[in-house]
Amino acid sequence: MSVFADRLAEAVSRAGSPVCVGLDPVYEKLPAELRSGADHCDAIEAFSAGVIDACRSVVPAVKFQSACFERYGSRGVRALELCVKRAVDAGLAVVLDAKRGDIGVTAEHYAASAAHASADAITLNGYLGPETIEPYLKAGLGVFVLVRTSNPGGDIVQAPKLADGRSVAEMMADHVAALGAAWMGAGGMSDVGAVVGATKASEGAALRARMPTQFFLVPGYGAQGGTAADVARLRTRDGGGVLVNASRSVIFAEGEGAWHERVGAAARKLGEELRGMK
Amino acid sequence: MSVFADRLAEAVSRAGSPVCVGLDPVYEKLPAELRSGADHCDAIEAFSAGVIDACRSVVPAVKFQSACFERYGSRGVRALELCVKRAVDAGLAVVLDAKRGDIGVTAEHYAASAAHASADAITLNGYLGPETIEPYLKAGLGVFVLVRTSNPGGDIVQAPKLADGRSVAEMMADHVAALGAAWMGAGGMSDVGAVVGATKASEGAALRARMPTQFFLVPGYGAQGGTAADVARLRTRDGGGVLVNASRSVIFAEGEGAWHERVGAAARKLGEELRGMK
Repeated sequence: MSVFADRLAEAVSRAGSPVCVGLDPVYEKLPAELRSGADHCDAIEAFSAGVIDACRSVVPAVKFQSACFERYGSRGVRALELCVKRAVDAGLAVVLDAKRGDIGVTAEHYAASAAHASADAITLNGYLGPETIEPYLKAGLGVFVLVRTSNPGGDIVQAPKLADGRSVAEMMADHVAALGAAWMGAGGMSDVGAVVGATKASEGAALRARMPTQFFLVPGYGAQGGTAADVARLRTRDGGGVLVNASRSVIFAEGEGAWHERVGAAARKLGEELRGMK
Repeated sequence: MSVFADRLAEAVSRAGSPVCVGLDPVYEKLPAELRSGADHCDAIEAFSAGVIDACRSVVPAVKFQSACFERYGSRGVRALELCVKRAVDAGLAVVLDAKRGDIGVTAEHYAASAAHASADAITLNGYLGPETIEPYLKAGLGVFVLVRTSNPGGDIVQAPKLADGRSVAEMMADHVAALGAAWMGAGGMSDVGAVVGATKASEGAALRARMPTQFFLVPGYGAQGGTAADVARLRTRDGGGVLVNASRSVIFAEGEGAWHERVGAAARKLGEELRGMK
């Protein structure tokens, strides 16, 4: 079985940019033509399929916001499964943004669930400790552990200083790095990655120093205010190691032309911006 | 709309004990008669229905381990929806143990998903901050935020001391208490509860002092080593405020008789143990 970190690095290299298109479909924001009479769940499935087709030759990866599908119950989960399959078949690296975090046998069930949907990687919450993470790795999935998030409220829990001088986020980073050492790919990166928001780039260099072999999944680019300069500070020494997620700014891109053309163009433009980062 | 905390207090009072039966169905552990030829997903649905029927007149609440259903994909989620409905119709308070934790619009989607399944309350992970919790409350759900968990690895993240002397878990407890003050029921308890493991009872008194109006959802009783004396230390001053979860020791109870009779008897026995706690 190939290692997620190596497959991801290869996909980024092939696409020539580290863009991850975030599939956070919300019915009310869909193009009007997809909202005319359609069932909401069917509409987000059709939209997601269109986004995948528009982006497949332009980006290395897509990230599915599981909640946007789960809100429709079992039918939404079925739509998610079909869209994940479509993305995998299109050769994209697929991240399931589910932010799961549970222990032991329960984590094994969630890992089975993610594998059922055929995703390559999943986002996880490490508050319950390392034993919440290992079952996913054992199931062959890459993981991105929440370390420093881009939302304002994240500061309240992640920024406080420990008695030893580290922030809570830095403590989490150290746990991620320690766990990741046992799950290394041939290319020098680990299957254990981290979520580090672009808007937290001021702390990013310190987090990168603590996690030199982690892929960073970077939310907060574009609509949330993160810039290419912010992302640049999160890279590894050789200029890689990031997967930059953009959701709304790509999938709901405005402008001329058909909606799927706008989506493809926005994904391509983002790739160019990130290729140019110093 | 009635307040979750009040409904839960009433259900506990009516049942005469604070037992919550944890529905963590695992195919391999089901009674042989449910495993003969049955599809795995159908079998856990039939088992869960049997547990609900066996416990409905004995306990105030059930907690569904979402992962055990999600592992079967969309079909499993459909089975979960049907079982949740059965539990609600039986008059039980229903907690969805999903340990979700996401921000803003995404949290709203998850809240919609939990409401779709008709649960009364949901377990949440607060690592991303208070904004991950509020959407569930606004959707009319009670919440139990992970504060101190009963798994060994939880110590690694939850026990370290902050510079101000609090543990990470105590910091989380303070956030839970602060948020909960805005969501109070008529009976003096909040719709914002906390998960505090029975095996962490040595820290429990300090956490109770920080969270005087929170219902504690207490895992770790029985199979994981927590005792009635441990639970007693987690109660409020008036002897309430806890919901004690037992999963394996009830749903897979061994002994004589039909399996559903064993389940009902184990739930009843647990209630008697907890009624007797000093």
